[in-house]
Amino acid sequence: MSDSTMSRRRAIALAGAGVAGVAGAAAAGGALVNGASTDDTPDPAEGAVAFAGEHQAGIATPAQDRLHFVAFDVITKDRDRLIGMLKDWTAAAARMTAGRDAGEVGAVGGVPEAPPDDTGEALGLPPSGLTVTVGFGPTLFRDATGKDRFGLAARRPEALADLPHFAGDVLDDAISGGDICLQACANDPQVAVHAIRNLARIGMGVVSVRWSQLGFGRTSSTSNTQATPRNLFGFKDGTANLKLEETDLLRDHLWVRQGDGPDWMTGGAYLVTRKIRMLVETWDRTSLAEQEMIVGRSKGSGAPLGRSGEFEEPDLNAKGADGEPLIALTSHVRLVHPTTNGGARLLRRGYNYVDGSDGLGRLNAGLFFMAYQRDPRKQFVPVQRSMARQDDMNEYLKPVSIGLFACPPGVTGPDDFWGRALFS
Amino acid sequence: MSDSTMSRRRAIALAGAGVAGVAGAAAAGGALVNGASTDDTPDPAEGAVAFAGEHQAGIATPAQDRLHFVAFDVITKDRDRLIGMLKDWTAAAARMTAGRDAGEVGAVGGVPEAPPDDTGEALGLPPSGLTVTVGFGPTLFRDATGKDRFGLAARRPEALADLPHFAGDVLDDAISGGDICLQACANDPQVAVHAIRNLARIGMGVVSVRWSQLGFGRTSSTSNTQATPRNLFGFKDGTANLKLEETDLLRDHLWVRQGDGPDWMTGGAYLVTRKIRMLVETWDRTSLAEQEMIVGRSKGSGAPLGRSGEFEEPDLNAKGADGEPLIALTSHVRLVHPTTNGGARLLRRGYNYVDGSDGLGRLNAGLFFMAYQRDPRKQFVPVQRSMARQDDMNEYLKPVSIGLFACPPGVTGPDDFWGRALFS
Repeated sequence: MSDSTMSRRRAIALAGAGVAGVAGAAAAGGALVNGASTDDTPDPAEGAVAFAGEHQAGIATPAQDRLHFVAFDVITKDRDRLIGMLKDWTAAAARMTAGRDAGEVGAVGGVPEAPPDDTGEALGLPPSGLTVTVGFGPTLFRDATGKDRFGLAARRPEALADLPHFAGDVLDDAISGGDICLQACANDPQVAVHAIRNLARIGMGVVSVRWSQLGFGRTSSTSNTQATPRNLFGFKDGTANLKLEETDLLRDHLWVRQGDGPDWMTGGAYLVTRKIRMLVETWDRTSLAEQEMIVGRSKGSGAPLGRSGEFEEPDLNAKGADGEPLIALTSHVRLVHPTTNGGARLLRRGYNYVDGSDGLGRLNAGLFFMAYQRDPRKQFVPVQRSMARQDDMNEYLKPVSIGLFACPPGVTGPDDFWGRALFS
Repeated sequence: MSDSTMSRRRAIALAGAGVAGVAGAAAAGGALVNGASTDDTPDPAEGAVAFAGEHQAGIATPAQDRLHFVAFDVITKDRDRLIGMLKDWTAAAARMTAGRDAGEVGAVGGVPEAPPDDTGEALGLPPSGLTVTVGFGPTLFRDATGKDRFGLAARRPEALADLPHFAGDVLDDAISGGDICLQACANDPQVAVHAIRNLARIGMGVVSVRWSQLGFGRTSSTSNTQATPRNLFGFKDGTANLKLEETDLLRDHLWVRQGDGPDWMTGGAYLVTRKIRMLVETWDRTSLAEQEMIVGRSKGSGAPLGRSGEFEEPDLNAKGADGEPLIALTSHVRLVHPTTNGGARLLRRGYNYVDGSDGLGRLNAGLFFMAYQRDPRKQFVPVQRSMARQDDMNEYLKPVSIGLFACPPGVTGPDDFWGRALFS
C-alpha cells in the first residue's frame, strides 16, 4: 500500500492481504461476488475535482449534493504544531480529493500493530467530487480576551471584522464561530463525512471539534450547468446566485484582490455561515399566495412575480391591478436584490438540513447558509441588515448560528500548504 | 393540477401558471435554461418502488442510500381521527412513492388563498426509489399507565413484548419508543425528508413528532445485487444479512406467519431500532490487528479471519498458530452468528449518521441500527443479549435509543389502508 498513486478502488482490490495473511485474490473475489467493480470509468458525479489551483476548490466549484462542515477550536498554544497540522491536513485533503486514503498506509496497510492512517469507511468509493475548503476565523488572530495567540494579530484582514448583531438572531455560541473551519462537499455524503472525520483525527491534540453540520441537499447552483434546487420552503433558491461562468462578476464580487488587504488573502474569499432554523410547520399553513408574496417569486417556476421565466430579472417597479407593487416592498427577492444593496452580490452555497426534532413535536429543519464574497462588510452585512429589518420571511426563520472565516487562496505547488502565506 | 396521474416532473413543467397568472410556457422555459429535463427515462436509482403488495415496501426492498426515520406520539384520544389520519397517510405515501405530490392540488395548484397540500421541496425530483414503511409501537396498544387507549390492548401481539434492558445501554427516553413510526428510504435524501415532512404535516393535531433521525449512508445490503457498504468503524457491515433473494429464509425469519399471533400482523414484520453512538475517536487509535480481532473479519475484504472471501462462512472452530481461536470468543462475528444464537437471523437495514458534535470536541456519529424480523423475542433479544454481555466491540459503542414497532402487512387494494386490519 506504499504506492501513493493508488486509488481507493485499487487499494480495496488488494485489501485483506494484511493481518489475516490470505492471498490478495481474496478481496478481489469478494468484490466480484458483490457485483462491485474496480473499473474506473469516470462518472461526472463520481470524478475528482482538482485540489491545487489559484483558488481553493469548493467555492466556485459546481455545488456538490452533500455537505459536512466543521468548525474547530485550536487547543494548542504551539504555533509550530499548528503549522505542522496544516501541512498534514493539506496533504491528506489532496489525497482524499483524488479518491485516495487519508495517509500512505491507508485503512488496511502498514503494520497490524499500528492504528491505520485512514478510517476506512470510504474504501472502494470513488472521489465523488470531493472538495475540502479551509477558512480561518477571527479568534485565530486574537482571542476573546484580546490575546494575540499565534503572532497573527497584525495579519488579520480588516474585512474579517466581527459581524454585527442582526435583528432576530437567537445565536447559540456553542455552534457559532470557531478558529478554523473545514467545508467538505461531495456527491456522496459518506465521502464528505470520511474527509472531515480523518482531518479531525489528524488534528487530534491540536484542534478540537467545536461544532459540525451535515447538509443533505444543496440549495444553490454555482454553475449555469446546474438546475436550481429547492429549499425547505419548497421554493427554488439561489436563482440569482453568482455562477462560476460569470468570471467578471467573480473578479468583482468573490475573489479578494491584491490591495484589498493583507497579501496572504489575495485569491481567497470570505465565508459567512448561518444556521437558520425554518419554522416549516408554520410556513406550511400559509396560503400559496402569501408564500409567493413573501418570496416574490412563483413557487412552481421560480420566476419573479410578473415575469414568466426563472432567470428573468424581477421588475421591482411593476404595479399590480390594485396599484400596489407586484413585488412587495418587504418581499425577500426585493430586499436581497443587488439594486437594493448597492450592487452587492454573493456566491451562496447553502444546504438543507434536518437535525432530528425539537422536543416540541416538530422537525428541527432549515437552511445551513453559506456565502462566499470579497468583503463581508460591503456584501453580506448590508444585505443581511436589509433583510433582518424588513423581510416578511423573518417570521418563519430563526437564525441560531453564525460564523465568519477567511478562506485563503489555493495551494499551488507540492511544498505549498493551507495558510503558508499567513504563517510565513 | 387535478390530474391525479400527473408526476412531479410533469407538474413542474406546468407550474407557475398559478398565482402570477403567466403562461404555462414560463416554467418549462425556466427548466430548459436550467438544463433540467422533463424526460422520464427511467434510472434504477431514480425509479419508483411499488407501494402496494403483500408486504410493505421498505423491508425486503434493496436498501436505498438515505434514510429519514420518525417516531410519533399520538396526541388525539379520538380513534376515528387516528383512523382518518392513517387513511390520509396511506394515500399520500402511495402518491409520493410514485413521484407525485402528497395531495391532489400539489405545491402550486389549487386556489391561491389556501395552503398547498404539498410542501414543494421535491418538485421536479424523480421517485428516487422512495419507500415509506409504517409501524405501531407497544404504547399505541396500552400506555405507560396501562390504559387501553384505542381499544387495541387485546390486539397487541405477544411478540411486541417490551424489550428487556441490555447491559451497556444508556437510553435517552426522549429519543426512544413512540406510538407510530415511519421509515422513509430513498436514494435522494430530499425525497425522503419531503415524505416524512408531508406526513407529519398531514398528521398535525393527531400525532406529534417524538424523535426523528436522518441516516446519510446505508450500512446494510438487503439484496445480492448490492455491494456491502461500510460502517463508521470502516468495516463492511451486514455481510451475513438476510437478502431478499433468500425467500425460504425470509419466510422462516422475516415475515410473520398465520398462527404466529393476531391475524392483523400476518405478512408483517417487527422492527427494532437502536441509535448506537460509535466512539470513533477511540476506535481510530486502535491498531488494525485489534480492530480485526474485535470484528472477526479482515478490514479490507470483509472476509472472516482465516477465510479469503467476504461471503465465506466464518470457521468458528479454526485455531491460530498460538492454539487460540482464530475468531476470538468475544469477537462480534462470532457473538452475532446464527450458530451462537440458535439459528436466529435478522434483516438489518441500518444507516450511518452524524449529528453534529458532542460538545466535548468530538463528532456525534454512529449507527442507526434497524432490524426486521418475525419475532424479536427469538431473534433480536437473544442476539443482543449475547452481544451486550461479551462483545469486545461494546467498549466503542454507546447505545442511546431503542424502539420496537409492529409493521403490518402491505396494503393490497384501493380501499385498504395502513392498520385497516388492526382497527377493524
